[in-house]
Amino acid sequence: MVVTLKEILQSCQLEFIMEAHNGLSAKIVENTGFKAIWASGLSISASHGVRDANELSSSQVLYAAEYMADAVKIPILLDGDNGFGDFNNFRRLVKDLEKIKISGVCIEDKLFPKRNSFVKAEHHLETISNFVGKIKAGKDTQTNKDFVIVARTEAFIAGKGVDEVLERAVSYADAGADAILVHSKSSDFDEIEQFMQGWDSNIPIIVVPTTYYNTPIESFVKSGISSIIWANHNLRASINAMEEISQQIFYEQSVRNLSNKICSLEKIFKLTNMSELNDAEKKYR
Amino acid sequence: MVVTLKEILQSCQLEFIMEAHNGLSAKIVENTGFKAIWASGLSISASHGVRDANELSSSQVLYAAEYMADAVKIPILLDGDNGFGDFNNFRRLVKDLEKIKISGVCIEDKLFPKRNSFVKAEHHLETISNFVGKIKAGKDTQTNKDFVIVARTEAFIAGKGVDEVLERAVSYADAGADAILVHSKSSDFDEIEQFMQGWDSNIPIIVVPTTYYNTPIESFVKSGISSIIWANHNLRASINAMEEISQQIFYEQSVRNLSNKICSLEKIFKLTNMSELNDAEKKYR
Amino acid sequence: MVVTLKEILQSCQLEFIMEAHNGLSAKIVENTGFKAIWASGLSISASHGVRDANELSSSQVLYAAEYMADAVKIPILLDGDNGFGDFNNFRRLVKDLEKIKISGVCIEDKLFPKRNSFVKAEHHLETISNFVGKIKAGKDTQTNKDFVIVARTEAFIAGKGVDEVLERAVSYADAGADAILVHSKSSDFDEIEQFMQGWDSNIPIIVVPTTYYNTPIESFVKSGISSIIWANHNLRASINAMEEISQQIFYEQSVRNLSNKICSLEKIFKLTNMSELNDAEKKYR
Amino acid sequence: MVVTLKEILQSCQLEFIMEAHNGLSAKIVENTGFKAIWASGLSISASHGVRDANELSSSQVLYAAEYMADAVKIPILLDGDNGFGDFNNFRRLVKDLEKIKISGVCIEDKLFPKRNSFVKAEHHLETISNFVGKIKAGKDTQTNKDFVIVARTEAFIAGKGVDEVLERAVSYADAGADAILVHSKSSDFDEIEQFMQGWDSNIPIIVVPTTYYNTPIESFVKSGISSIIWANHNLRASINAMEEISQQIFYEQSVRNLSNKICSLEKIFKLTNMSELNDAEKKYR
Repeated sequence: MVVTLKEILQSCQLEFIMEAHNGLSAKIVENTGFKAIWASGLSISASHGVRDANELSSSQVLYAAEYMADAVKIPILLDGDNGFGDFNNFRRLVKDLEKIKISGVCIEDKLFPKRNSFVKAEHHLETISNFVGKIKAGKDTQTNKDFVIVARTEAFIAGKGVDEVLERAVSYADAGADAILVHSKSSDFDEIEQFMQGWDSNIPIIVVPTTYYNTPIESFVKSGISSIIWANHNLRASINAMEEISQQIFYEQSVRNLSNKICSLEKIFKLTNMSELNDAEKKYR
Repeated sequence: MVVTLKEILQSCQLEFIMEAHNGLSAKIVENTGFKAIWASGLSISASHGVRDANELSSSQVLYAAEYMADAVKIPILLDGDNGFGDFNNFRRLVKDLEKIKISGVCIEDKLFPKRNSFVKAEHHLETISNFVGKIKAGKDTQTNKDFVIVARTEAFIAGKGVDEVLERAVSYADAGADAILVHSKSSDFDEIEQFMQGWDSNIPIIVVPTTYYNTPIESFVKSGISSIIWANHNLRASINAMEEISQQIFYEQSVRNLSNKICSLEKIFKLTNMSELNDAEKKYR
Repeated sequence: MVVTLKEILQSCQLEFIMEAHNGLSAKIVENTGFKAIWASGLSISASHGVRDANELSSSQVLYAAEYMADAVKIPILLDGDNGFGDFNNFRRLVKDLEKIKISGVCIEDKLFPKRNSFVKAEHHLETISNFVGKIKAGKDTQTNKDFVIVARTEAFIAGKGVDEVLERAVSYADAGADAILVHSKSSDFDEIEQFMQGWDSNIPIIVVPTTYYNTPIESFVKSGISSIIWANHNLRASINAMEEISQQIFYEQSVRNLSNKICSLEKIFKLTNMSELNDAEKKYR
Repeated sequence: MVVTLKEILQSCQLEFIMEAHNGLSAKIVENTGFKAIWASGLSISASHGVRDANELSSSQVLYAAEYMADAVKIPILLDGDNGFGDFNNFRRLVKDLEKIKISGVCIEDKLFPKRNSFVKAEHHLETISNFVGKIKAGKDTQTNKDFVIVARTEAFIAGKGVDEVLERAVSYADAGADAILVHSKSSDFDEIEQFMQGWDSNIPIIVVPTTYYNTPIESFVKSGISSIIWANHNLRASINAMEEISQQIFYEQSVRNLSNKICSLEKIFKLTNMSELNDAEKKYR
């Protein structure tokens, strides 16, 4: 049974949200058993061959998201970067996301155009009051009460201390955010742990342990975190696999010895539900 | 040094063209050393999560192709299905492909909307005269003399004998096709070999050994084939990899033990040329 | 108060549906007082500068339709040509139209790619059984019970007699079409009148008096027609106006004497609801 | 004979550039005799039914521009707002515009997202150094030496004095802009005239007399202005015409008395070159 994104974020146990970047990877995430999908901006950008720096327009991100939503029944949380502009661009985004059945969007407090958080670049933070306005504008725009707006603070990324991170998180929660995502590029859990010690609210906290991946699961639970996003691992696995297979085929000049490194054609047909079309042919032709 | 698609197809040695389905996989194919890319209809469709049955519109296929062309310098041969309609739709396709720097297009003699050749479905062949008209229309439309139009016959796929395949191939070559792709879903090389014995022209022949993958390379060479397309192997490798990594993360509730199954973030940044943006920041900001 | 497209088609009085081809013209139609909009394929194509011959892909037609739906509250009936392919393409179209809040779609029994009905071209009719399958596939796909599928027969356009038109109309109604559109390029009402004399069903009939525009309204009422589509008149008025204004400005090298031929900038701002943005600025910034 | 946009901007006589907003209006402008087209951001937005406030994404503006370029042979200058982000977004825009054969782009020194210049809103100017970087980035990106980048200053619009306008214009010209567009919402020519008195360079100056439309042509010539953009008049004429025709049809419940207010169907077919398709049918079918 499918549970809503809102229910997942508000659940009492630690939840896991897995990255996908197109209809195919979304389907794989669903088939695996995950309850929800993270439509990663980095992954969507990289799969297009472009940089995670608002190089794709909002239309293009929406296009990718639509195919993901079409492919699965489980909810999708879209990485909406900065909302692709100001409060007004964000309002339009929320409307468009509701149309294509995306369950929620995460926006971050960086200026448009953004740079990926793990890149050594200047990360320009939005003012608190502007970002609060953006959250409110989004919440006022949604027509489906279950639509979720996650506010992500990049204050740690921009080199700020825990006090500013807490001030931002409180402000965003007060503005109506359904959850707060606190991002960190630290290689250990300290930054986030410090934040959690200061966090005194029942608004759920989401984290993305891309760099502090060694943190044991118990630490997340103990600190009171609600959900974890595995933010880019399908993309990263697919890159490794494609590099390997391309090289093997290139050097062997043959596809004879790929054995179990590649799936069958039948698997592709199954993932795209080809049998339904065959059945429909009989019915409608 | 980049050679044109036309030169590759007309070269004296056996050439290999590797599948990609988005900007990222295109870049990986280029980095590996391949001279040209097959923008596969099956793979582009499947990556969107939809069926290889003209479910994507021509606009959507063009969109995927544009990002592939932006990502690489080596030439791309687009799998253009049936040209997405009649001769007029195909003329528009050729114009649009030239704009986005795609080097050539392969069209097949099946009716719109098509079904994937490996699916047990009725495969409706276009009449020879209509398909000849389509080829001519495309050749008359291109403005870049190096643009390549490959005519693909699905006659074997539709259950026809070698005589019809040869008749079609000859007609398409006479109409101006730059190369002929003879498709077969046989598990061995016999069908294609039979065709090659009857083929008496210097127009290059391309084959796609997806089902007769066990054929040794020498057989292709001996029979006089010009180029081989590895048509969907990057997609199939990525599916296996994503399924595996999704399952591991799901069951371990951790990304600690993925070791060399995933690439680094730096690899993603390198594939998308992030350092160029950092340099440009210094220059233009 | 907005009434649904279904209610309009089933109403007891003669109803009028007015053409629009983008968000702006849709808004004008709504402001005028019309109850529903015809999103004309000819007009949408021509506004892009292309031919009404399936030169725009389904994606592009959907894109135009989405902006029309965003701009108005009254229902929109999309001219869906032949459904952009077979029953499967049409199923996808229905799904996509429901997402963007289009109220219904009209499909015609011509093969893809079509030619405009008023062009001296061969008009290839779809077989009755295939078209019946297409209608059924659409009805089975819709999830909103109020979504409307109008079946349009082009049999008169293709030179067939009233018997075939009636046979087709009956078959389409039996297949579940919510209304039948009988198209005619006759310069008088005779063809349609003949059809109406043979029509013995309470499924509503829609006509498009583009060529038999001289028919008095009473004739439509008397014959039992349900709705009339004014199919392309906004486009045709805008062409005349733009030709005239362009020529005047070109020859006068000035815009001083355009007087009431052009609207004010304030009118544009009003049509696009600029004041709402100004208010929102105060609220969210 | 078609002259390039660069030649038009650099010509010794006063030149006129006429607005269009889609393929159809572009064709009308060309047919009228104008040498070049202004693809207006206000008009493109309004025709979609949305506000001139970066509500359309860059993809959507490019899409509209592509159909305009496809429809005509004369050059098109795209209103590129602020370049849809920073220097990097602008670099991508320039690449994409070259693909679709747009001859040049005009960017303005306002922050993303912008507000229309004639709206009573805060107009936030970009810093000179950032905008200079943006111009340089664009010039370094173009590969066609004839591609034109016009720098538009909104300093008058933002309430600045002539000194700042001149400082900006000089800086932009020094950065490599091919022409400077000085915008003004004054109801008379004074502001621009003051600017022209201080302008001491042979870089061409473009103006947009939307509000100071009463200025006689001789004043433009005398002051040394190079080109005039009639920025939105086709759109404004079409709005008036569609409102009028919609109302007439609504109240008369008939299209009998539209006489010469609407063009013929044949005119539409001619504008979209339907006869070419009929000829091609004979050739390729």
